[in-house]
Amino acid sequence: MGYTLSEIAAHVGGELFGDPDYCVSALGTLDHAEAGQLSFLSNPKYADKLSRCEAGAVLLRDVKDAESVRNAIIVRNPYLAFAQVTRLFTAAECGWQDSIHPSAIIHDSAELADNVTIGPNVTVGANVRIAAGCQLGPGCVLGEGVSLGEQTRLAANVTLYEKVKLGARCIVHSGTVIGADGFGFAPHNGEWIKIHQLGSVLIGDDVEIGANTTVDCGAIEDTVIGNGVKIDNLVQIAHNVVIGDNSAIAGCVGIAGSTVVGKNCTIAGGAGLAGHITLVDNVHITAMSLVTRSIDSPGSYSSGTALDSTQKWRKSAARLRRIENMAAQISKLEKQVKTLLTKG
Amino acid sequence: MGYTLSEIAAHVGGELFGDPDYCVSALGTLDHAEAGQLSFLSNPKYADKLSRCEAGAVLLRDVKDAESVRNAIIVRNPYLAFAQVTRLFTAAECGWQDSIHPSAIIHDSAELADNVTIGPNVTVGANVRIAAGCQLGPGCVLGEGVSLGEQTRLAANVTLYEKVKLGARCIVHSGTVIGADGFGFAPHNGEWIKIHQLGSVLIGDDVEIGANTTVDCGAIEDTVIGNGVKIDNLVQIAHNVVIGDNSAIAGCVGIAGSTVVGKNCTIAGGAGLAGHITLVDNVHITAMSLVTRSIDSPGSYSSGTALDSTQKWRKSAARLRRIENMAAQISKLEKQVKTLLTKG
Amino acid sequence: MGYTLSEIAAHVGGELFGDPDYCVSALGTLDHAEAGQLSFLSNPKYADKLSRCEAGAVLLRDVKDAESVRNAIIVRNPYLAFAQVTRLFTAAECGWQDSIHPSAIIHDSAELADNVTIGPNVTVGANVRIAAGCQLGPGCVLGEGVSLGEQTRLAANVTLYEKVKLGARCIVHSGTVIGADGFGFAPHNGEWIKIHQLGSVLIGDDVEIGANTTVDCGAIEDTVIGNGVKIDNLVQIAHNVVIGDNSAIAGCVGIAGSTVVGKNCTIAGGAGLAGHITLVDNVHITAMSLVTRSIDSPGSYSSGTALDSTQKWRKSAARLRRIENMAAQISKLEKQVKTLLTKG
Repeated sequence: MGYTLSEIAAHVGGELFGDPDYCVSALGTLDHAEAGQLSFLSNPKYADKLSRCEAGAVLLRDVKDAESVRNAIIVRNPYLAFAQVTRLFTAAECGWQDSIHPSAIIHDSAELADNVTIGPNVTVGANVRIAAGCQLGPGCVLGEGVSLGEQTRLAANVTLYEKVKLGARCIVHSGTVIGADGFGFAPHNGEWIKIHQLGSVLIGDDVEIGANTTVDCGAIEDTVIGNGVKIDNLVQIAHNVVIGDNSAIAGCVGIAGSTVVGKNCTIAGGAGLAGHITLVDNVHITAMSLVTRSIDSPGSYSSGTALDSTQKWRKSAARLRRIENMAAQISKLEKQVKTLLTKG
Repeated sequence: MGYTLSEIAAHVGGELFGDPDYCVSALGTLDHAEAGQLSFLSNPKYADKLSRCEAGAVLLRDVKDAESVRNAIIVRNPYLAFAQVTRLFTAAECGWQDSIHPSAIIHDSAELADNVTIGPNVTVGANVRIAAGCQLGPGCVLGEGVSLGEQTRLAANVTLYEKVKLGARCIVHSGTVIGADGFGFAPHNGEWIKIHQLGSVLIGDDVEIGANTTVDCGAIEDTVIGNGVKIDNLVQIAHNVVIGDNSAIAGCVGIAGSTVVGKNCTIAGGAGLAGHITLVDNVHITAMSLVTRSIDSPGSYSSGTALDSTQKWRKSAARLRRIENMAAQISKLEKQVKTLLTKG
Repeated sequence: MGYTLSEIAAHVGGELFGDPDYCVSALGTLDHAEAGQLSFLSNPKYADKLSRCEAGAVLLRDVKDAESVRNAIIVRNPYLAFAQVTRLFTAAECGWQDSIHPSAIIHDSAELADNVTIGPNVTVGANVRIAAGCQLGPGCVLGEGVSLGEQTRLAANVTLYEKVKLGARCIVHSGTVIGADGFGFAPHNGEWIKIHQLGSVLIGDDVEIGANTTVDCGAIEDTVIGNGVKIDNLVQIAHNVVIGDNSAIAGCVGIAGSTVVGKNCTIAGGAGLAGHITLVDNVHITAMSLVTRSIDSPGSYSSGTALDSTQKWRKSAARLRRIENMAAQISKLEKQVKTLLTKG
């Protein structure tokens, strides 16, 4: 597997400085790339690495850096170009492609389009519809009435409950569970009466969902994930959440029931969103923040405290518990000083 | 699938205002329900939606609201009645019911009662006991000596380690792992020596556990989950934790080893409980709080800080790190003012 | 299954006080152990339990405690000795050992050494290499080119993506996914362009990974987990993270991309580490702390606030948002008092 620099330059729409027939067989970091490998410089603060870089070629923004390296491809956005090139170098899929493994259990009523790949030990329920070019890894389970758009790919051991719908070109990683019951119970005499969850999950096109993430089905209506949304590992999306197009949600985030996240939002790792709130478009939440109220203006929002040595933190945390006392002390001082100043 | 209003009124013990033969074929929200659908009004603050509601019938508390809607069923607790009605409308289970799929691998020594449903690619180990009416989804793995009470249902791809015991009418969602080794190691010369975990997990009746949750086996004695406990997705329950009856634990909560949670507690999403502590009955922990000490009195407890714009939050967080300085400044001022007042 | 006290004393290198032929058939806690069971006293604060302890024998540090119990084994480190003894009492593995189950799907090009156990419904991809003594639980999926060192054990339903490498004597618990795509996207015109993840995961010897944990593959180079590392349940390790030897990571921790954790670190439950930072050796992070910057000195670090009643917490949290105002009030008071003192 390899590409010439002229092929790569054409793929990314860049200008080549160097040998068009130079062959690149792999990608590498600026620190460790060797001859025959392509690297990239995205952040200008690492430009001093170029002189020591042994890569066969580098994707660059600034043409004046081209002379520091063996070969260069100049592009407007090296990080984007790098993303585009990674696609050329993805490994071939594992050995079950372009076939339906004989161990797969597929219900008679399921409709499979052409070029569908189904790995070993997959279970496909009644009335499932799988569009052309989909790939299902080993051990996946698709409940009754599931629907997958074209070229959607499920890694191994993905579970889709009844009626879950995914659009085209989605990727779902292993261990992820979509459509499990939302957490809904009515309290009654000290016990919890189950609210059976009757909705499902509706996922748009070009959505990627990481490993061991959970997206619950809706209580009555559906949980909805918009087009182009990217969700990382171990994320919890509760029932009837709505995520707007192209929002990105990092690992370990939890979003409680019926909350609406706008378009082009980013939620950093470990953050939590309370239920029944709304975030407008272009809201950014920093890591491990807790959002307990709706956010009406775009921008970045945070909660939490800064890291400290545990010894110092203990004192600060204890003091913070008494911050109301401090406020009272200040008020008293203000009055006393006012009196003194008046007298003075 | 449908029910007349008289059937539904009887099911929930309510009083019908309207056409007893009106047929309801689905449930709907106040906002979107159409003719032929049943909705409910639980929170009085949404009462103004009734006049615009197109539902065929609505579950209501207040008889005076009945005239605003097409048909009404008056009940003491509409949310509870709604929960009871959802049960009527749950979809039929996926197409493997009332049978043992031929691809399931079942150890000869396993004992299966009548009316047990086992999906494709399930593995049932030695000496497993499965009571009447249990359902196991595709891909489940039950280790040696597992025991399931009557009508317990495992969704697809649930893993139960050796000797795990679940009571009757439990529901466990996909990807959940019960009985994996607790996290126990003795430090020795800079390395960790494994403490092999010899206990198991004992789960009561009517417990529901969400997707991709983990409940570890005990070190020596068992981890214990009481009757009627409800656990959401992506929750971590460590070894030798004890959860009292009818407590509810929301998504992304972590409970460290040997901690005891009382009865009828609620732990909101993302909260963390340290190990070896005890919470009495009726304790409520708010979202993303960290509990590092035992709680001896019922009530609601919290930690964390309020959300702010990131710009403002940065300043507050930096100032909070110096809160001890502020306290010292206040003390000094108090002494100075006292001196001035004495002089005055 | 049972051992005499002389056998156990020899196993842990301890001195026996009592009957060398006394037979121990199980382990028990100080509170609940019965005759025929072995217990241990690790923490001296529980020494008063010894007089009421009915255990057949107790692992002790202090020889003067030996007279309080039926039989005693004196060791330097009772907790370590207990860990060593647990190994003797681990249950036999479930019934698929020392064989390759006929339902397993194993690619022709896979190389399996002697004494490999493979459970039902396992899928082993092309060019996989499994060393001697490995055990794979039911439902595991090993992608193309995976490699397992000697005596490594995967519990049921573990997923290893292409090219993941584990060393010898590792244990991976159920539901864990190793090698899924790192969360990498280049923003472009309001959409996200996937950075295909071309690295893999390299895991050392004697590593244990809990249930439903995720370790992502590297973007270009590998994600690396050192020897002797212990990782609990529901932990997220992002792409290109490096974890030093013998570090321990508790449940629900998230570590963002390219972060380097030193050797012998401990990260307590629910903590979060930002991306692209470095923690030196011997750093300890307390529960639910957020680490947003590199840590250059060994020691313990924390963030967060202390638990309080929700009512009191609400006031403190609101006050904290105005802590800058408090600081301004103090500054003003200081100036005023200085003026008064000067005048005085």
